[in-house]
Amino acid sequence: MAMIMAVNAGSSSLKFQLIEMPAEKVIAKGQVERIGLTDSIFTLKFNGEKVELIQDINDHEQAINLLLNQLQEHNLIEQFNDIKGVGHRVVAGGEWFNKSHIIDEDALEKIERLASYAPLHNPANAMGIRVFQELLPDAVSVAVFDTAFHQTLTRDKYLYALPYEYYTKYGARKYGMHGTSHRYVAHRGAEVMGRDLKDLKMITLHLGAGASVTAIKDGVSFDTSMGFTPLAGLMMATRTGDVDPSLVYYIQEREGLTNEQMLNVLNKKSGLLGISTISSDMRDLQDVEATNEHAALAMKMFVNRVVRYVGEYTAEMGGLDALVFTAGIGENSSIIRERVLEQLAYMGITFDPEVNKRRDDEMIISNPDSKVTVMKIATNEELMIARDVQELMNEQ
Amino acid sequence: MAMIMAVNAGSSSLKFQLIEMPAEKVIAKGQVERIGLTDSIFTLKFNGEKVELIQDINDHEQAINLLLNQLQEHNLIEQFNDIKGVGHRVVAGGEWFNKSHIIDEDALEKIERLASYAPLHNPANAMGIRVFQELLPDAVSVAVFDTAFHQTLTRDKYLYALPYEYYTKYGARKYGMHGTSHRYVAHRGAEVMGRDLKDLKMITLHLGAGASVTAIKDGVSFDTSMGFTPLAGLMMATRTGDVDPSLVYYIQEREGLTNEQMLNVLNKKSGLLGISTISSDMRDLQDVEATNEHAALAMKMFVNRVVRYVGEYTAEMGGLDALVFTAGIGENSSIIRERVLEQLAYMGITFDPEVNKRRDDEMIISNPDSKVTVMKIATNEELMIARDVQELMNEQ
Repeated sequence: MAMIMAVNAGSSSLKFQLIEMPAEKVIAKGQVERIGLTDSIFTLKFNGEKVELIQDINDHEQAINLLLNQLQEHNLIEQFNDIKGVGHRVVAGGEWFNKSHIIDEDALEKIERLASYAPLHNPANAMGIRVFQELLPDAVSVAVFDTAFHQTLTRDKYLYALPYEYYTKYGARKYGMHGTSHRYVAHRGAEVMGRDLKDLKMITLHLGAGASVTAIKDGVSFDTSMGFTPLAGLMMATRTGDVDPSLVYYIQEREGLTNEQMLNVLNKKSGLLGISTISSDMRDLQDVEATNEHAALAMKMFVNRVVRYVGEYTAEMGGLDALVFTAGIGENSSIIRERVLEQLAYMGITFDPEVNKRRDDEMIISNPDSKVTVMKIATNEELMIARDVQELMNEQ
Repeated sequence: MAMIMAVNAGSSSLKFQLIEMPAEKVIAKGQVERIGLTDSIFTLKFNGEKVELIQDINDHEQAINLLLNQLQEHNLIEQFNDIKGVGHRVVAGGEWFNKSHIIDEDALEKIERLASYAPLHNPANAMGIRVFQELLPDAVSVAVFDTAFHQTLTRDKYLYALPYEYYTKYGARKYGMHGTSHRYVAHRGAEVMGRDLKDLKMITLHLGAGASVTAIKDGVSFDTSMGFTPLAGLMMATRTGDVDPSLVYYIQEREGLTNEQMLNVLNKKSGLLGISTISSDMRDLQDVEATNEHAALAMKMFVNRVVRYVGEYTAEMGGLDALVFTAGIGENSSIIRERVLEQLAYMGITFDPEVNKRRDDEMIISNPDSKVTVMKIATNEELMIARDVQELMNEQ
């Protein structure tokens, strides 16, 4: 039995889950927000209780110290040493990491060098790693990469049709994202079906504020919709997804924006927010779509992009056995699922709209006679991280 | 019986066909190259003969005067007035033109104002129109737009997930291209099948140096792969097609390029040329793919993009009845057709590779039992232009 901490460190935030392995029992979870600002917020949930502290937290070291002390104070751990492993979500693993990895100095240096691919995330991830290593020197430290699952893409899938030298000079290629989530729901989906993932052609739809689609064949990632960065692919909460690059320059020049400002528009002001003009949150749009033309339009465009990707990856894999919805919208919006599935009827997908409305964490939505098994699987990146940590600890 | 001239005027070139209508007989065709430069080249083909003149041609007026005089000299027309109509290919028609249009002053002014969408093409198209109007004042002058066929796209299909105001301020949307070609082969394809186009879900693959895919439903364009500009969509001879916009900026900054220089890379140095590093011409790549890894990779990526679009548009339309290959690669590369069709076997497409190798201008490639009828149809934009001119003349 071992306590493992799954950590997602951002530049001013830190999310955590303390999981008892191999029981896979969540002992505690929570987050620290506004690190480095005033009135930082520490939240800890355990046994149905919730602790919230508001106080100035100057840096990640203070945040993590507070977290560990709070775990001890509430008898969730006896001593810091009870935590035997810490798994860190790391956004960019480049071509160096094709699976989770025990973090030694060499690995940490690589994570820091990969910051040019994820300037907002990797430095924060690395900082979280360093602080935990100082405070828990005996715990095994593991990096779990968002990109690792997609390292199985073949060259014809991950290259862009750009001058080839940009790939060799700058690593200009598709890396994909949300790998831990796609990997988790793909394996759970196969288990729910009672099948071996290796035998299935599967598409996993991670539809959250960030959204991506992955085609899974022979048990590995075969193609995925996010690209060099998380901007590419589907329409998202505030990201545009794929767009004619000429149009980006056309708008930039007319608006008099710098590259950075234009990227900000594409990442923060587009997507559901850009079209609806009222909200980036699908729930808000669903609430008003009957009377708000822009909200309805944004939902229609979102559904259309999902449908097109399902068709695209079905063609690329030469068929489809299973389709999995996950993440905020995928798990909770029965309306979006229904509309996507209605448009996929041509594939022989059948489903009961009443079953689709059920709120189970894991369920088969499609009818038994459906040519494709459609599922909803609640994602659990923290559990996947804890499993990877334990596996690497066992290998040591 | 009327002689109609189909014209495609570029900034330094002019292509033409003189067609006798309604017989649809090509009387003469040819081109003028290097207009405004020294040693301009005038080529005229008729009755199996070929005339080539090399002389300085200073402007479009000289070029068109030469053309008309040559037609007369070779007894292809008795007098200029024999040409009753001139149809001009115009690249950008924006939202103003959803079909071919007789060119009055208002229409010409609009074509000139649309130059911001097609800065290299519309001004040249407009110049061609003005000169023909001066030299053939009695002929009916008609504009045939590359974008017009795609004006049937609904708003959820033509909008990008950008801030909505860019659509209202700048007309930032998908316009599509190659509309005259897609329209022609779609109608011919339906005729070859003995079916009404309105009853078919069809995908037309215009695969040339520029390449685009169109989904056709209820007899009209339902979606298309080119976007605000012809850069978007498929991988092309030298154009990248869709690419993560963040990556474009990433490369631009590292290479120290201006926006214009980066657009030049995306348009002129990418695609088949960028990946193969040896040629933008599919024939060259086919010749060496067995021994040149980069050529093979470029071909594989090209095929994959086509396959994905077929899947995407099949999903969007909810099925597929007919698939048409056209343009340089689509008409002439049996290898590319074969590889695309092999990957689409999952859809129930069957075909005979030997039939696929036949060189007929129009043919059904698929087997009678294939669930999708696959055809090769030689495109003929000039004939489509001549038909539009005649139709508008008849309506006058």
